[in-house]
Amino acid sequence: VQARWLTEADLRGHSSHGIQRLPVLVDRLREGLIDGAAQPDLTWRTTTVLVVDGARGFGPVIGELTMKEICSRAVDTGVAVGLVRNANHLGLLAPYVESAARNGFVAIATTTSEALVHPVGGREALIGTNPLAVGVPATPEPFVLDMATAAVSMGRVLRCRQIGEQLQPGWAIDRHGIETLDPTEASALTPFGGGKGYGLALALELVVASLTATALGTDVVGTLDVEAPCTKGDVFIVFDPARCSDSFTPDAISSYLTRIRNSAPAPGESRPAIPGDRARSLRTRRLTQGIPVPRRLWDELMGVEPGLDVDR
Amino acid sequence: VQARWLTEADLRGHSSHGIQRLPVLVDRLREGLIDGAAQPDLTWRTTTVLVVDGARGFGPVIGELTMKEICSRAVDTGVAVGLVRNANHLGLLAPYVESAARNGFVAIATTTSEALVHPVGGREALIGTNPLAVGVPATPEPFVLDMATAAVSMGRVLRCRQIGEQLQPGWAIDRHGIETLDPTEASALTPFGGGKGYGLALALELVVASLTATALGTDVVGTLDVEAPCTKGDVFIVFDPARCSDSFTPDAISSYLTRIRNSAPAPGESRPAIPGDRARSLRTRRLTQGIPVPRRLWDELMGVEPGLDVDR
Repeated sequence: VQARWLTEADLRGHSSHGIQRLPVLVDRLREGLIDGAAQPDLTWRTTTVLVVDGARGFGPVIGELTMKEICSRAVDTGVAVGLVRNANHLGLLAPYVESAARNGFVAIATTTSEALVHPVGGREALIGTNPLAVGVPATPEPFVLDMATAAVSMGRVLRCRQIGEQLQPGWAIDRHGIETLDPTEASALTPFGGGKGYGLALALELVVASLTATALGTDVVGTLDVEAPCTKGDVFIVFDPARCSDSFTPDAISSYLTRIRNSAPAPGESRPAIPGDRARSLRTRRLTQGIPVPRRLWDELMGVEPGLDVDR
Repeated sequence: VQARWLTEADLRGHSSHGIQRLPVLVDRLREGLIDGAAQPDLTWRTTTVLVVDGARGFGPVIGELTMKEICSRAVDTGVAVGLVRNANHLGLLAPYVESAARNGFVAIATTTSEALVHPVGGREALIGTNPLAVGVPATPEPFVLDMATAAVSMGRVLRCRQIGEQLQPGWAIDRHGIETLDPTEASALTPFGGGKGYGLALALELVVASLTATALGTDVVGTLDVEAPCTKGDVFIVFDPARCSDSFTPDAISSYLTRIRNSAPAPGESRPAIPGDRARSLRTRRLTQGIPVPRRLWDELMGVEPGLDVDR
């Protein structure tokens, strides 16, 4: 499952969540911070609230299991919630909500992450890059939004540092709190969309921590490092729209999305964008043409020792 | 209830949702598009999903009633959802989630609205300004986020038109799809935050329509006009965090918010902002000093006929 998740990210062009994460995952396995044979504890605290202790399992293994359970439940109850702690990094969020939407569910997924983002008006990295994913049934393909609430990923900043490229305006600030284009000076990422994007990032941090009773801000560790157990939380919410009304039809959603795609483009654009379209088209191409992997990453991956002599 | 909602908006400085909406509300009452004595139909389709037909009632009357019902239910079930159709404009979203958060609930509210926002890469107004509000329990005051997903409200654009002021960059485009600073040329609002804000706006449109089986895009009418029944939908989700875990405490949330408020400010800033703080402080001041009302609006309000000779 973990390998599939890494591959899906690379197929969709989200290399920051792709195979480049493998070395850290392997090191975390060796350190016992990830348990590849984890037996998660799933407890329905109410008919509709599933609380999951991931027992240090792989994020996608625990996340996919959680989604499967709550989708089954939502068929009866209309809505069901999965609250996960003590699981590792979820990886790309899109596949969780996409799979649910393909099966007829409206799905929302969010998670906290290491504090890399500064508040508006502040200069310290105190908030996670807290991504939000939303899936909605539609034909021929479901609607899938998957976005971090930082203007850019830390992976992108690090890549700019590696290849000596400048940052774009609005991406990051230096330690004095001043916007910087120099990737070696970046000390905090800027939230996307000014005060609103910041408000959303902070709201997600608080909602996840409140519902999963997990860590906040700089206490969130264990998704990027190889030293700490993972202290973040994950929240999944699924609805069965067919259970919520008698008149639901994905056709209305599909027609509306088609109307947007076919509406008048802005000057210089070929057509209005729908979130998820670009990733889907790239995925289709890469399934036949393969995934380009940078030589430096390839060499690093070839150096990963396959044997895991775990002693814990 | 409706009068309280208008006043709350003005107290918090959100005049676009304040008393200036009164004339339209009164006209809608006269036209029978709002029923001041509406008897809404509340049906629990499942233990946790409340479907509400607002019977053309005032938005805040139906919305407050819905929130009260689902909060009571969430004490038992951990999560409960209110899906509203056929109610009028909700007005400011903040009070719904704030009241719930004050009573210990994590609350999310969203609603669709007239299509005023263009897609990224497009030039037609096809998406609502779809606001999102999130409330989280904290002391001494709950966290309250309330934001539209357009960069600016249409009310603000209209005010710029009235007083002959230019728009700010990134607020609106003209009918050719080109950004305009001229409020008389603005034909569509720009989503906040580029592709991510647009993605969020669109996701909210689809989630609300899917769950409430209400209208999409340009089929959403009846919140600004005095001709059409209201075709939008409202979605409320509440969680009882005390039911979701044994270790929930709002103190952790409060300490984290305090840490952000007291963290190092950006150059030229007094302190980092927390969403809701400015509105709260303005509200406190206006409760003692009063609410300034522009002369033109005052005169208009004085001209509203108090008697409603409703014949339908």
